[in-house]
Amino acid sequence: MKNERVTYIKGEYVPDSEAKIDYYDGGFQYGIVVTDAIRTFNYKPFKVDRHIDRLMRSLKVARIDPGMSRDELKGIALTLLEKNRHCFNPPHDDTWIFYNISSGRYFVYSEPGKTYPRQTVCVNLWPLEFRRHAKFYLTGCHVVTPSIRQMPPQCLDPKLKHRSRLSWVLAGHEAHEMDPEGFALALDLNGNVTETAGANFFIVKDGVLRTPPTDVTLAGISRETVLELAQQIGIPAEEKHFQIYDVYNAEEAFLTTTSFCILPTTKANGLTIGDGKPGKIALQLLNAWSETVGVNIVDQALRAAGLL
Amino acid sequence: MKNERVTYIKGEYVPDSEAKIDYYDGGFQYGIVVTDAIRTFNYKPFKVDRHIDRLMRSLKVARIDPGMSRDELKGIALTLLEKNRHCFNPPHDDTWIFYNISSGRYFVYSEPGKTYPRQTVCVNLWPLEFRRHAKFYLTGCHVVTPSIRQMPPQCLDPKLKHRSRLSWVLAGHEAHEMDPEGFALALDLNGNVTETAGANFFIVKDGVLRTPPTDVTLAGISRETVLELAQQIGIPAEEKHFQIYDVYNAEEAFLTTTSFCILPTTKANGLTIGDGKPGKIALQLLNAWSETVGVNIVDQALRAAGLL
Amino acid sequence: MKNERVTYIKGEYVPDSEAKIDYYDGGFQYGIVVTDAIRTFNYKPFKVDRHIDRLMRSLKVARIDPGMSRDELKGIALTLLEKNRHCFNPPHDDTWIFYNISSGRYFVYSEPGKTYPRQTVCVNLWPLEFRRHAKFYLTGCHVVTPSIRQMPPQCLDPKLKHRSRLSWVLAGHEAHEMDPEGFALALDLNGNVTETAGANFFIVKDGVLRTPPTDVTLAGISRETVLELAQQIGIPAEEKHFQIYDVYNAEEAFLTTTSFCILPTTKANGLTIGDGKPGKIALQLLNAWSETVGVNIVDQALRAAGLL
Amino acid sequence: MKNERVTYIKGEYVPDSEAKIDYYDGGFQYGIVVTDAIRTFNYKPFKVDRHIDRLMRSLKVARIDPGMSRDELKGIALTLLEKNRHCFNPPHDDTWIFYNISSGRYFVYSEPGKTYPRQTVCVNLWPLEFRRHAKFYLTGCHVVTPSIRQMPPQCLDPKLKHRSRLSWVLAGHEAHEMDPEGFALALDLNGNVTETAGANFFIVKDGVLRTPPTDVTLAGISRETVLELAQQIGIPAEEKHFQIYDVYNAEEAFLTTTSFCILPTTKANGLTIGDGKPGKIALQLLNAWSETVGVNIVDQALRAAGLL
Amino acid sequence: MKNERVTYIKGEYVPDSEAKIDYYDGGFQYGIVVTDAIRTFNYKPFKVDRHIDRLMRSLKVARIDPGMSRDELKGIALTLLEKNRHCFNPPHDDTWIFYNISSGRYFVYSEPGKTYPRQTVCVNLWPLEFRRHAKFYLTGCHVVTPSIRQMPPQCLDPKLKHRSRLSWVLAGHEAHEMDPEGFALALDLNGNVTETAGANFFIVKDGVLRTPPTDVTLAGISRETVLELAQQIGIPAEEKHFQIYDVYNAEEAFLTTTSFCILPTTKANGLTIGDGKPGKIALQLLNAWSETVGVNIVDQALRAAGLL
Amino acid sequence: MKNERVTYIKGEYVPDSEAKIDYYDGGFQYGIVVTDAIRTFNYKPFKVDRHIDRLMRSLKVARIDPGMSRDELKGIALTLLEKNRHCFNPPHDDTWIFYNISSGRYFVYSEPGKTYPRQTVCVNLWPLEFRRHAKFYLTGCHVVTPSIRQMPPQCLDPKLKHRSRLSWVLAGHEAHEMDPEGFALALDLNGNVTETAGANFFIVKDGVLRTPPTDVTLAGISRETVLELAQQIGIPAEEKHFQIYDVYNAEEAFLTTTSFCILPTTKANGLTIGDGKPGKIALQLLNAWSETVGVNIVDQALRAAGLL
Repeated sequence: MKNERVTYIKGEYVPDSEAKIDYYDGGFQYGIVVTDAIRTFNYKPFKVDRHIDRLMRSLKVARIDPGMSRDELKGIALTLLEKNRHCFNPPHDDTWIFYNISSGRYFVYSEPGKTYPRQTVCVNLWPLEFRRHAKFYLTGCHVVTPSIRQMPPQCLDPKLKHRSRLSWVLAGHEAHEMDPEGFALALDLNGNVTETAGANFFIVKDGVLRTPPTDVTLAGISRETVLELAQQIGIPAEEKHFQIYDVYNAEEAFLTTTSFCILPTTKANGLTIGDGKPGKIALQLLNAWSETVGVNIVDQALRAAGLL
Repeated sequence: MKNERVTYIKGEYVPDSEAKIDYYDGGFQYGIVVTDAIRTFNYKPFKVDRHIDRLMRSLKVARIDPGMSRDELKGIALTLLEKNRHCFNPPHDDTWIFYNISSGRYFVYSEPGKTYPRQTVCVNLWPLEFRRHAKFYLTGCHVVTPSIRQMPPQCLDPKLKHRSRLSWVLAGHEAHEMDPEGFALALDLNGNVTETAGANFFIVKDGVLRTPPTDVTLAGISRETVLELAQQIGIPAEEKHFQIYDVYNAEEAFLTTTSFCILPTTKANGLTIGDGKPGKIALQLLNAWSETVGVNIVDQALRAAGLL
Repeated sequence: MKNERVTYIKGEYVPDSEAKIDYYDGGFQYGIVVTDAIRTFNYKPFKVDRHIDRLMRSLKVARIDPGMSRDELKGIALTLLEKNRHCFNPPHDDTWIFYNISSGRYFVYSEPGKTYPRQTVCVNLWPLEFRRHAKFYLTGCHVVTPSIRQMPPQCLDPKLKHRSRLSWVLAGHEAHEMDPEGFALALDLNGNVTETAGANFFIVKDGVLRTPPTDVTLAGISRETVLELAQQIGIPAEEKHFQIYDVYNAEEAFLTTTSFCILPTTKANGLTIGDGKPGKIALQLLNAWSETVGVNIVDQALRAAGLL
Repeated sequence: MKNERVTYIKGEYVPDSEAKIDYYDGGFQYGIVVTDAIRTFNYKPFKVDRHIDRLMRSLKVARIDPGMSRDELKGIALTLLEKNRHCFNPPHDDTWIFYNISSGRYFVYSEPGKTYPRQTVCVNLWPLEFRRHAKFYLTGCHVVTPSIRQMPPQCLDPKLKHRSRLSWVLAGHEAHEMDPEGFALALDLNGNVTETAGANFFIVKDGVLRTPPTDVTLAGISRETVLELAQQIGIPAEEKHFQIYDVYNAEEAFLTTTSFCILPTTKANGLTIGDGKPGKIALQLLNAWSETVGVNIVDQALRAAGLL
Repeated sequence: MKNERVTYIKGEYVPDSEAKIDYYDGGFQYGIVVTDAIRTFNYKPFKVDRHIDRLMRSLKVARIDPGMSRDELKGIALTLLEKNRHCFNPPHDDTWIFYNISSGRYFVYSEPGKTYPRQTVCVNLWPLEFRRHAKFYLTGCHVVTPSIRQMPPQCLDPKLKHRSRLSWVLAGHEAHEMDPEGFALALDLNGNVTETAGANFFIVKDGVLRTPPTDVTLAGISRETVLELAQQIGIPAEEKHFQIYDVYNAEEAFLTTTSFCILPTTKANGLTIGDGKPGKIALQLLNAWSETVGVNIVDQALRAAGLL
Repeated sequence: MKNERVTYIKGEYVPDSEAKIDYYDGGFQYGIVVTDAIRTFNYKPFKVDRHIDRLMRSLKVARIDPGMSRDELKGIALTLLEKNRHCFNPPHDDTWIFYNISSGRYFVYSEPGKTYPRQTVCVNLWPLEFRRHAKFYLTGCHVVTPSIRQMPPQCLDPKLKHRSRLSWVLAGHEAHEMDPEGFALALDLNGNVTETAGANFFIVKDGVLRTPPTDVTLAGISRETVLELAQQIGIPAEEKHFQIYDVYNAEEAFLTTTSFCILPTTKANGLTIGDGKPGKIALQLLNAWSETVGVNIVDQALRAAGLL
């Protein structure tokens, strides 16, 4: 395949279409995979070190030894960017960099509690396909609260960025029944708002940014970036539990995630948030972020999606 | 590889060493895999229909369409048994039959809540390697209660037999720290005893069998078989919550699972259960089971492990 | 208004259109109302005494003294049936009898914890308008699980039949977003299935009826009737917690409530229950009930709704 | 009745003794009422806009469309003050202004989840009868913790100011058994202190004001006012969970609510708080509040109650 | 002291007034004491073996090695009965036999998790002083639900009969505030009724005995005796969770405990249970128990208390 | 015994070996003991007043009247220091001062809820035996999370410093099974990290000190001292919930308690914290503390333990 991407799987760089995992890998057999995802701006990876830091934390908690140093892990990403340069046309498009590191072969006869024998390190690029989400910069996206609850940290900590995510997927199905375009915004066991599958959540209330604490959500790097940008441009912010009542009555709301950075949210369970348009603070933060990275985040997405 | 087993992966029968999964499969990327496991006695599969029933239930809840009927699913197992006949020497050994059915390709750009496009059906045999567990028929195995709690059904129901099991694996690591041979017997959020990774748990108290209800455990087929055998030989039984106090003070305790059927348990958190030897009722049930299937379950395992 | 019904409000029989409540009544100001509802079959009230029993229990727990004996309370219903005889055409239609007994005037200056000064006893008839529900006898109705949870008994016991039901109403709005015809089937704080607003819920599994225990649901009189009928016709039944997994995988499911007795349920969160048609056991129970009361429950409803 | 107050009910200004609600109103039948209450100081309404803001939030969450703008809603209050001017003798007395807005007619055949057809907007004045509470400015009031727990937000959010309050009333009965003058200070499901029926709760510890966060309490306007006054006069304050241990060992404690503003609390479950007298900070805040509104809050109440 | 009782403390029989515990004993320093209590009927100990069984279970869970066999433990009780024969006048009075076995010296420098070095075995008699409770056979006793909750089994299992009971004592204080004669009937964290300090609780509903399961209560020997007697005289019984609603609406209720066997309960939180008199089934069970042991339990108590 | 310490028991100063408690004391019979512990530096008691304050709070909540003023209580400690001066060799060693105040005689016939009749005040010194813990200043200590959970405040508040601690002791046994030198670091019912038996817990994350709030832990005086010292030397600190994930990934961690002040922690559940050595901030805080009290805390301990 011409222009096919190259992907790193267990020590080798292979054409993406040949990227395969051993059927007996613990990633497939038990969901023992930790992950992290970085995006580029103008083909330069953003906050690589913060992502590698978090990946190392996930590996530690999951007791997976990647068999290489953090520099080596980072090096693979840089090599992949180089090898795949011809597949991208920055700044018109950009890419995601995914790490997926599993326990390696871990079948039923593996002894529980034993260190995993041979880890599986995979890294791949994936174009930021803006078609699906770009329109939400204009209209705002919707969230719905499924009846399925966020995993409590005493079962599996949401701070651990892993791939044992069937629960998220099932919550997504429920949300989809309610609103075909709705993201599932899970509540925790106490009824607090947490996150969606893969994105943190913020509201603005009396001009103050609020996002749930990391007891119940991933410590997102985009979430962290928003908190930093808010401080820079003088928007007060706090990490504090809130409930769906607060979402309904927020002045604005948005998701944060690696790919789309900040995605305005304009409906929750069918109720309009604020005036029903993407919020001013969300757009202000998107501008600040765009300036930081030298790419107009919204324009890039809209153009790629043919909306501009 | 001479005598290599044949495995079914997405419509094809391939040598086991070539069994591979697409890197972008939802099984690896999100843990979207449902599973079931059957064992043979004298190379005849045991309770196939009950297992296929449960597999169909899991598929339904996970909203995975296997793309084939239950008879077709069953047929693959029978075909595999035929194709791999030369790899086994019954009644001296026996095999497991594993189903692992994933969502198929399901990467980050998949739309949440959409039916998965192309499922991945995998079926494989795996010899019942008796070496690891056989000795426990003689000495009893140990259980320890980790601090990690069983997933509550409002997050991900333990009745759904899936492979998003990082939580189980981490609990296993904790248990291993406490007792290198200990199985992790997870408590639920209310402190009730539930199950280990892959096995149901029974105690005997005042001559009555007790096992946790399926609010907090898998509805195991081996569990069901034990309840049936108990009725046949006149041992009263009940499905009822109990706590670790009851395990410490049980007359006997045992695990049930597809591979070893019934595994006597003689220690919990370092305290001896009963007289510290495999229990009479456990052995009585193992005998009854052996008669039903025409294979002496314990002897087969001990011989295979070189312990008899 | 010709043919207008007569309604009992605080000691007087008034035309229904003149039935008014004091603005300062505790029923309007604090939701201090207990209630019960009886239906007639061929204009004869069904199980009046069981309903009055439950009403007395609710009054006791809510510490409302109705100011009259249970016979007097019952007498009002019988008088209303007599006074309103001309408004009904049995057996083609039938009526509900509602009791709503509030604390009486209870405004903000009332002293907390004091016995309420003057209770408000209201009793009214309301025709069983079959139009909305009759079709569900043919197609089955749908249930969806909202994110709002059932009130736990330590806050307000679901066994108390009261009218402080804003929570139910909000759950209904959520369900409506998901499925315009869906009834909200609330989960409790542990993720167990409970009831819908005003109806108990049953599933059939391996031929056994199962309904949640009254820890988390009203002890419905229709629920009790179904349990009695099941015993008479030899269908085993149990009161036991179950989860949405069990609903998805039930052979059949149904709601029970005073008005429609038994309403087959054929979908849950968009997944089809059983073969998607009203269940055999549901219909068998409806037949048995019809025989008991001498009215063909389904036919009456279908005819009234113009569906037969 | 001479000097009778005029009350607004569904579009009309009627004599208060004729204020009636339709028996079939959802407020009486299901507790579907949202509410807010404002008080006047020297017959001028205090923080009207903040109260109307909160009322609008409650209406939104309860999905009740009041059928009029916030200015129209506010206008009714102002008209009522004008029309009832002759019933009051400020600054010797003052009035409460209550909003109660229900779903309108909402009987059992209403379709769940449908927007309510015709809302019921009611607004009434009610003299601030100081007789019951004024003495507590001198002696302090008592709180007791009932066994009934505060409603969790995942069932019905305490931030929603509604009238489905049977739970509060029953907790009041329990408290009354323990201490005939005790206010029920409910704990949440985790054992944190929350609020009483209609009032927020503060303690002072090491000179710092502490009040529970709005996860478990109403976001009271008086609570907000106290936090503002504290900032003005330099008393540090925080919103943070605490337990009954902290109440027992507080230097002082007090309730805040629209009518009496700040009510010192001197006993909890029979144990004396601080030195058993109204606290210095409570009195300091009452002074500051009095200055802000130009009415000596305590003197007004004591005089009206004949205690000064 | 003439007629002074003899008490067994750490291997010695000493006059009761000289019974002392080392200040550094783990029983005083950490509450590490397990206990059991037996009563005599006509000076013969009742169900000694069942009590010793339970004591052995408690010792095991608390990891206290008593340093002697169960026969030796039993022997001490029998010896004490012999040595103290002159202090009692059966059948007019009877005695309690208490075991209190602590960890022995266990001060702060003891290494956590180490087996306790030297256990402290104490056994004492204590006359069944009927004065306090006898009247309740005639009038029924009262229960109140404190805000303090029963210890969950994942913190400290209520089946373990221990003496780390500050929580019970504090709940008793709360109950006493509410009703000076009230026993504290604690709810569990889910709002289920559990037990009082030292007594199990039963209700009668539709002629059926119901008592909470041992998830949340001690497996009382008197509770067990009541279940046995009920079976003998044909009263159906079940172990099942219930709530305070069920207590309010029970036909009758009673406590069971070693000393007074069965104590009718006639009030709960100020509400009258049944007709407010000791229940028929309670009295029937007391008769059956009296016959079994050859002592009229109620008459003995009433006479000793001067009430007959 | 020459050089024997003198101990205060119920009004008398007695040789330590004669310190005895009445067998019927509520401390032994029900665990009704509150406690506090002070340590000396160079034989001068540290923060006596803060400890007496907390002791008074504990006494109040436990409703124990010590029968003497706070100055009298303090006076006993000072007298004991004087009387025992000859047993110590400061600054080479130092002492603990323990208060243990029980309800006094409180046997089963005591009326529940009544004020305890005669309290038992005990005060004793105990040399700071450095042998057990001193090595941990060099290597760091280990923590493990047992399956037993921290007592929730609605059962028994961890802020109350009492001696009803069987739960702690059993958690210690579990921890000991996992790591013979491991301290049990209990999680609360929500999975948050709390404290060990007798010590508070801190982590350092991104240079910020974090310790759990007092909802779930004792308000330790050493914890308070660390927060004060941190402020003095410019280390930011916060009281905030965290989970075991955060412990695994902390830069450093330590325990704080009266005896050893700050004890570096280098392992959690077998995973190394930071670089596996006592943390820089921990040592910096130990230095600051040493300067404040004029004793080199670490050197004193190491010398006494023969490690320096």
